[in-house]
Amino acid sequence: MQGCMPECEVAYNSFIEGKWQSEINVRDFIQKNYTPYYGDSEFLADPTRATFDLWNECKELFEKERQNGGVLDMDTEIVSDITSHKSGYINKELEKIVGLQTDKPLKRAMQPFGGIRMAQTSCKSYGYEINPEITKIFTKYRKTHNQGVFDAYTPEMKKARHAAILTGLPDAYGRGRIIGDYRRVALYGIDRLIEDKQEQLLSLDGEMKPEKIQLREEISEQIRALEEMKELGNIYGFDISKPATNAKEAVQWLYFGYLAAIKEQNGAAMSLGRTSTFLDIYIERDLRNGKLTEEEAQELIDQFIMKLRLVKFARTPEYNSLFSGDPTWVTESIGGMGIDGRTLVTKNSFRYLHTLENLGSAPEPNLTVLWASKLPQNFKEYCARISIKTSSVQYENDDIMRVVHGDDYAIACCVSSMTVGKEMQFFGARANLAKCLLYAINGGVDEILKEQIGPKYMPITSEYLDYDEVMQKYDDMMEWLAGLYVNTLNIIHYMHDKYCYEKAQMALLDRDVKRYFATGIAGLSVVADSLSAIKYAKVKTIRDENGLVVDYAVEGDFPKYGNNDDRVDKIAVDTVHSFMNKIRKHYTYRNSIPTMSILTITSNVVYGKKTGNTPDGRKKGVPLAPGANPMHGRDENGAIASLSSVAKLPFSDAQDGISNTFSIIPDALGKDEIFVGDFDINIDCGCCENNII
Amino acid sequence: MQGCMPECEVAYNSFIEGKWQSEINVRDFIQKNYTPYYGDSEFLADPTRATFDLWNECKELFEKERQNGGVLDMDTEIVSDITSHKSGYINKELEKIVGLQTDKPLKRAMQPFGGIRMAQTSCKSYGYEINPEITKIFTKYRKTHNQGVFDAYTPEMKKARHAAILTGLPDAYGRGRIIGDYRRVALYGIDRLIEDKQEQLLSLDGEMKPEKIQLREEISEQIRALEEMKELGNIYGFDISKPATNAKEAVQWLYFGYLAAIKEQNGAAMSLGRTSTFLDIYIERDLRNGKLTEEEAQELIDQFIMKLRLVKFARTPEYNSLFSGDPTWVTESIGGMGIDGRTLVTKNSFRYLHTLENLGSAPEPNLTVLWASKLPQNFKEYCARISIKTSSVQYENDDIMRVVHGDDYAIACCVSSMTVGKEMQFFGARANLAKCLLYAINGGVDEILKEQIGPKYMPITSEYLDYDEVMQKYDDMMEWLAGLYVNTLNIIHYMHDKYCYEKAQMALLDRDVKRYFATGIAGLSVVADSLSAIKYAKVKTIRDENGLVVDYAVEGDFPKYGNNDDRVDKIAVDTVHSFMNKIRKHYTYRNSIPTMSILTITSNVVYGKKTGNTPDGRKKGVPLAPGANPMHGRDENGAIASLSSVAKLPFSDAQDGISNTFSIIPDALGKDEIFVGDFDINIDCGCCENNII
Repeated sequence: MQGCMPECEVAYNSFIEGKWQSEINVRDFIQKNYTPYYGDSEFLADPTRATFDLWNECKELFEKERQNGGVLDMDTEIVSDITSHKSGYINKELEKIVGLQTDKPLKRAMQPFGGIRMAQTSCKSYGYEINPEITKIFTKYRKTHNQGVFDAYTPEMKKARHAAILTGLPDAYGRGRIIGDYRRVALYGIDRLIEDKQEQLLSLDGEMKPEKIQLREEISEQIRALEEMKELGNIYGFDISKPATNAKEAVQWLYFGYLAAIKEQNGAAMSLGRTSTFLDIYIERDLRNGKLTEEEAQELIDQFIMKLRLVKFARTPEYNSLFSGDPTWVTESIGGMGIDGRTLVTKNSFRYLHTLENLGSAPEPNLTVLWASKLPQNFKEYCARISIKTSSVQYENDDIMRVVHGDDYAIACCVSSMTVGKEMQFFGARANLAKCLLYAINGGVDEILKEQIGPKYMPITSEYLDYDEVMQKYDDMMEWLAGLYVNTLNIIHYMHDKYCYEKAQMALLDRDVKRYFATGIAGLSVVADSLSAIKYAKVKTIRDENGLVVDYAVEGDFPKYGNNDDRVDKIAVDTVHSFMNKIRKHYTYRNSIPTMSILTITSNVVYGKKTGNTPDGRKKGVPLAPGANPMHGRDENGAIASLSSVAKLPFSDAQDGISNTFSIIPDALGKDEIFVGDFDINIDCGCCENNII
Repeated sequence: MQGCMPECEVAYNSFIEGKWQSEINVRDFIQKNYTPYYGDSEFLADPTRATFDLWNECKELFEKERQNGGVLDMDTEIVSDITSHKSGYINKELEKIVGLQTDKPLKRAMQPFGGIRMAQTSCKSYGYEINPEITKIFTKYRKTHNQGVFDAYTPEMKKARHAAILTGLPDAYGRGRIIGDYRRVALYGIDRLIEDKQEQLLSLDGEMKPEKIQLREEISEQIRALEEMKELGNIYGFDISKPATNAKEAVQWLYFGYLAAIKEQNGAAMSLGRTSTFLDIYIERDLRNGKLTEEEAQELIDQFIMKLRLVKFARTPEYNSLFSGDPTWVTESIGGMGIDGRTLVTKNSFRYLHTLENLGSAPEPNLTVLWASKLPQNFKEYCARISIKTSSVQYENDDIMRVVHGDDYAIACCVSSMTVGKEMQFFGARANLAKCLLYAINGGVDEILKEQIGPKYMPITSEYLDYDEVMQKYDDMMEWLAGLYVNTLNIIHYMHDKYCYEKAQMALLDRDVKRYFATGIAGLSVVADSLSAIKYAKVKTIRDENGLVVDYAVEGDFPKYGNNDDRVDKIAVDTVHSFMNKIRKHYTYRNSIPTMSILTITSNVVYGKKTGNTPDGRKKGVPLAPGANPMHGRDENGAIASLSSVAKLPFSDAQDGISNTFSIIPDALGKDEIFVGDFDINIDCGCCENNII
């Protein structure tokens, strides 16, 4: 094998050979070497003394952080990068897995490449001040992503952002939604990865157009990041240039890869990938050889998860309030089925979930079970038990996503699925389709700001709204919004690559990455119900002194989305399909593949605040329904009917995810058993709601 | 007029109105308002006392600089930008035109954006050290042009650069060859220029592909540069937001524009443009109104030129030795004819040249007369007199260039012509065609390094060289070299735009700039003579122990380039035509227009050192002939025959300039009169020879 020294013989001893040796191919390694587990949870071990004590120290730190107003300490002197800090520990003697973002636990790193003002604001809001010299550097010498974006934004984009018809654009924070294949660090060691990247560079020869020059420079940056990862290992006393030789090293190497990523980037979602089954292979080997006990195996996982629970970024209070907290979206995807029919559940899938028992429940890391109908019954039952006990497990539908991404994908953030090491996403926030409908009626004038934001199309002048007229105008306005939205995102991602490139994460991806260009919509049910009201009831416009429609009087009843009534559900389906097709008309940066999501869990509240009265009778300021949910209280025909309405939405037009926030009361499904069956809708957990204006 | 306040009434009082008021159009202003001058030099004034004293102080500084080893002082603390320094003076009381690059005359500015190592080396070589904090900033946080280029270079590019088949690539220094239309600052004032740039931004709407995003960001940077120019004026106590209202302000405003450019960039050639006739309009008005005397007018020009003589950059000794000095290429283009038949010579054209009498001769600014057959006889004679007296005037053929660029072009560096404010050049150094011929013979193996540098084409294995075989292989090797050359330059210019964008200069150009992609060749006469020897004599190969051809024995005589002999001159013409067409096959960055030059004056010596024995009998290390010159001593049929050979080279294939270094001895042309007639060849002055490896 290329680049493989005698070390490999130890590292790969007893592993089944395969393509994974001649090329970077973690999936092949997993498929050849993993041991599916169909048993129950009886084998699981309690936390060790060291884990117990260490976690107690962490809990004390969390408490201190809480008492200190949400932040324990902030770095105001050192610009964070992969090797910027000396080693840091919680309690060195107790730690089996080491490495912190800065030199102290919970001390937040300074990451100004996305935007210096954002970094300043986050510090100021907790009473810290960035060293003025650093502020000067990132103002005078080193342009930031944020500055680049605003240099290129058109006035129309700035207005649309201000009016919140485009919301949460990642122009002042890291876009996130890239998952480095951190497993590669453990399986191959850094030297082999550098070798591979150098081969990639050699393969990019010939005509030098900007795209190729850009990629060549990026790969050079990736190689730099890999060298720095090695140095990061050295800082903590490890040589990660070679493959990991046992389970402990495998966890540690993998974590160093992830640690490099979070030291370099503070993306809105810094997800981990799909690591449990990969690591299980190392644990199984060590258990087999008597080098590890189950207690020690659980200790490694407990302490690894503990480290992930410590991941924090310096955020502004606005950011936190939108997110209802301080989320990092360290999402780990667990379980799922292989395309050969074997389950990908291993003992280590249990161990990951078991951390919720050993350490107690926690929102992070975001442990996400890839739910499939054929998952082993024992695992399903364990998931259900942990869910009930901790309310800390997220579920995603593996049966749907496996078709698109194969069996080595993971979830970035909450629902964005991507094949690990081969795909990434340009994250794109939301377009508010409810507001867009109001713009259609008012000829592009914002109903709250009372300013011209959209194009000066002819407004509706009649007293009563005519369905066909509204639909035609809505279609035009969506056409405008889709174009503006895509072009705004094109600028954002161009500048993110230019000023805040994710070199550590991208170093752990292939050369030719499939990029998704994620867009999103908000306010779908309001749109569906409004159009239904216009079509099936009578909607009278109420105008202000300038003739602007500011309210609506609905006369009569109309079918409402969420009742499995095709008359209105079809409107929702058509709207999704139509907007997605309008998105598809446009050039997308780096020829990425446009997708759409129908998410929003917490931000629907903020969006509602910024959206005026709507023709469905919803009042100004009332929250929009989250994601693809029906408006609260309008789904009158029970849970199944409500779910059926949502289920009609075409996944092909919303491939980045459809969320339906759904509280299951035992009676809702007509039986009192624990719900461990299938459902077709990705459960969203409310991320991606960044709306910092 | 847009943006014009009552100030304009004063500023534009008595000027003839025109398009120049409703759009940025300096040429229109000149054409409507200038006064051609056909008289003689009798009107010229001696230097004033203030000029005399001030220049004496400068001379003392120059002497001190010389005694100090070539550099008087270097800034090691402040990163130079438009507003980085407080005001600096030579002797404030005596100065009519103010503004220095740093806070002291001849103190060299620190300009690390092109490359921090270059900046460090230039400091170190004179005993200075850059503040380590700044080195850290430009290593850790702010990537430089140089770093970007090397991140993207392919191994083949690095090898070709190392072997010097590609030479003097602007990858470690500023490319230069951009002329800001500094006259715009005087005519319009900064506010109007910002307004214009803001309109340009508005006009760049719609689909956001990378090219448009890039341009939008660049224009935002340009606006930032304009704001800073205003601030630069303020630093010296002037409000340049509004148009200049008199001659003194016009000179000062224009100079502030230029000063901003050289504070921001240290390009290999920082040329001034074509300013004398423009400024003459202001001087004429003030003279007419009795607000200025001829002595005062000359004083303004003398002192302006004095400032240009102080322009210095921090360079490395290698750079200086290649250039045979410390050139800045502050080229000012004087005279020429208008396309309406009027001469563009004004009294101010005389005044500029007269500085060589008032201040003494000097290589900088590079005063370049745009020579045309119809120039007024008095001006021709004055030029001749000043040339003889000072040897400090460069001549360029206006009759040829006017056809291509109209009558408001100027020379950047030594021969590169471009319409002011509308065109620019991506500078591109040289490809060594003599070495390329040796690669053709040796299958891509470098004859000096004895390493494979070019592609592994089949070498020539015969004892005697066959013309057809050599030509075929040479054609293939040129094909390779042209592609490699263009792609290397594509990377350089991509990175220069990315990391070292000329925002101040580009702020004074139009939105849609015509970009020339300049390439150049070296060794033309060696190639022509070598191929002629192979064709018309017998050339025997002499090989080393590995079969590499390292020398040639020529048996018999052959026609030599430079004797007006079509047999060999045609080979030169065909080579130029063929290489240019191979260049044209490739994508050029930003869809720029490929051009070629046949220059080299001083660097031909270095190129010769790095080129082995050639089939024309030239020995390894012997200098190549400069530019398009015949090899020294081979033009045996006199000057006219030599010039005729050079004149056959097609301008359409070498539009960036053909140089012929030509010492005129009175007898050479067969008559003893002063040579003031026409010639068709651009006289080159040896710039652009940067070869820092």
